[in-house]
Amino acid sequence: MESTKTIKRAEGGRQISAWAAQNDSGHLAPVKISRRPTGPQDVRLNILYCGICHTDLHQIKNQLQESIYPMIPGHEIVGVVTEVGAEVEAFKVGQHVGVGCIVHSCRNCHSCQLGLEQYCPEMVWSYNSIDADGTLTEGGYSTAIVCNQSYVLRIPDNLPLDAAAPLLCAGITVWSPMKHFKMVGKGKHFGLVGLGGLGHMAIKFARAFGMEVTVFSRSSAKEKEAKEVLGAHNFVVSTDEKQMKAAAKTIDYIIDTISANHALDPYLALLKTNGNIVLVGLPKKSLQISAASLIYGRHFVGGSLIGGIEETQEMLDFCGEHNITCMIEKVPITYINTAMARLEKSDVHYRFVIDVANSLKDDANGV
Amino acid sequence: MESTKTIKRAEGGRQISAWAAQNDSGHLAPVKISRRPTGPQDVRLNILYCGICHTDLHQIKNQLQESIYPMIPGHEIVGVVTEVGAEVEAFKVGQHVGVGCIVHSCRNCHSCQLGLEQYCPEMVWSYNSIDADGTLTEGGYSTAIVCNQSYVLRIPDNLPLDAAAPLLCAGITVWSPMKHFKMVGKGKHFGLVGLGGLGHMAIKFARAFGMEVTVFSRSSAKEKEAKEVLGAHNFVVSTDEKQMKAAAKTIDYIIDTISANHALDPYLALLKTNGNIVLVGLPKKSLQISAASLIYGRHFVGGSLIGGIEETQEMLDFCGEHNITCMIEKVPITYINTAMARLEKSDVHYRFVIDVANSLKDDANGV
Repeated sequence: MESTKTIKRAEGGRQISAWAAQNDSGHLAPVKISRRPTGPQDVRLNILYCGICHTDLHQIKNQLQESIYPMIPGHEIVGVVTEVGAEVEAFKVGQHVGVGCIVHSCRNCHSCQLGLEQYCPEMVWSYNSIDADGTLTEGGYSTAIVCNQSYVLRIPDNLPLDAAAPLLCAGITVWSPMKHFKMVGKGKHFGLVGLGGLGHMAIKFARAFGMEVTVFSRSSAKEKEAKEVLGAHNFVVSTDEKQMKAAAKTIDYIIDTISANHALDPYLALLKTNGNIVLVGLPKKSLQISAASLIYGRHFVGGSLIGGIEETQEMLDFCGEHNITCMIEKVPITYINTAMARLEKSDVHYRFVIDVANSLKDDANGV
Repeated sequence: MESTKTIKRAEGGRQISAWAAQNDSGHLAPVKISRRPTGPQDVRLNILYCGICHTDLHQIKNQLQESIYPMIPGHEIVGVVTEVGAEVEAFKVGQHVGVGCIVHSCRNCHSCQLGLEQYCPEMVWSYNSIDADGTLTEGGYSTAIVCNQSYVLRIPDNLPLDAAAPLLCAGITVWSPMKHFKMVGKGKHFGLVGLGGLGHMAIKFARAFGMEVTVFSRSSAKEKEAKEVLGAHNFVVSTDEKQMKAAAKTIDYIIDTISANHALDPYLALLKTNGNIVLVGLPKKSLQISAASLIYGRHFVGGSLIGGIEETQEMLDFCGEHNITCMIEKVPITYINTAMARLEKSDVHYRFVIDVANSLKDDANGV
């Protein structure tokens, strides 16, 4: 982007450590940044862990054509409160908290009134986005962040913070459609298409809701783990026509996490009457769907984007009650470029989480 | 079709009058047929009126590649009970009743258990379909029909039978998705795409549910009637980009009745967060939908096919309470070939209904 000259960044605060991509090579390297002073409505946290989302990879390489460099990614941020503003009552120093994808919204539009800030036209992302004060937002690949209390989430005390971090994006992205579209019926048959960071969370939620779970995958490579570790009841190789035919009209609802272009009619054929498919991945090409696939069975194909703040808190509380976290590979920040290279090949099990606590330090005058 | 030799037809009963298409020219002419004897679970009715559905036109011309000739179309059938079987308690001679699209189903499968017989794999259509007894079903372009009581509908006494007939297909086809997908919220904003036989019923239901109604149409030709006669609040010319842009993100739900191929992304752009579109037409080409249109707003695109028996009765009772009927052109059966030619040009206001009572008689030895 040519507009970097006009981009303002938070200034004047204590210098803290972060890692930033400098250009669309995507290579990340250490930098120093400031956070804004903690305002009356703000919460400041020391970041202990930050998940690495596939979106981070797209953004550091400018694949969404909107990257502003230097860029500090990271929107699966967890840590401990170190300061609260004068008007903050809901959070206390020492508390475990998180910041997800959203750090500001208008709080007035139709979407905000529904508690679905992710669809607010004025929504500000936690990095690579222009905040309400005009400064560029910078994410969780850093030691601290300051965030308006309305976008800070409570992490239940019983959850390990490292494995809880990806709940803030991977978790909520499947939780929001599963709850909204009522994919929660005990004894119902849940289908997952695409077993990765998002998909493995969908299986955990589906199991917690008491559903029968079938995983659809292009090969049998993930079958053993899907069944034995994640608790899926059935595994169907989606490239095997015979297996797909046997599964026809057996599924109540499907979450489809695949962001590569793929045919949807074969998955619509799996649905019972009134069944539906919700996409949380974003294939580039237009979806091709035969109207008959929808009409004969009263099916629908929907889409969903992350989740609102209220939904996210609801999910975190549910995870606390049911001891649900993500399966992660915890890595030091110095591993970040290797992690990105592996992520590009989908070589991760199931989410990288940066161990900020043990691998990124501020100078003596820092936090 | 070559298979006419193996097709059995009901035999041995009283001869009644009907009109049949003899081949895929679609030309209809008078014939004599029999109905099966009224069995213990059956209801026999004298047909007074029968609506002409666009599907009838497709079927007489073999456009669905499954026509069996001679074919007696008609699935918007209303009349008066003349006989009931020994085990029939719900219906009495003299009662106003109807028969819609469905005359048999397995009553055991998932769809039947949901009361959605239209999705039962063993469902039998009221014409051009093989019934449970192996005979070909023959529809309402005739003076009488015998139907299992489970598929007979009560028509509220206050409704005029002629204008009620199209409720059995045009009405239920929009009612079923409106109810199932909860397009019923008072004060919500309902969008209709495609103002014809189905569409004008959707407007009537939407008004009865207390919604604001906007009609989307390719030209302004129907604006005056949509507003002044049908009670639509707004009218948007869908080919006018400026008007479409002004309507962006204002609609809660849309029923799309268009069966010609058309783009859906422009209509998805009209939806508020959580809004949805349901198709009741059946475009031949695959729908092209950008995933982003679904994901940014948690939208869905669904489909729906007519409706189940229970839903249809619910709709008829609602129509009785709210005095809702269809706008029709009542025509004698002798007008049928002209009516079909006009229907092919969408030249109908909004549904032809055959005046069987006054234009088709049986011989003295008939009913």
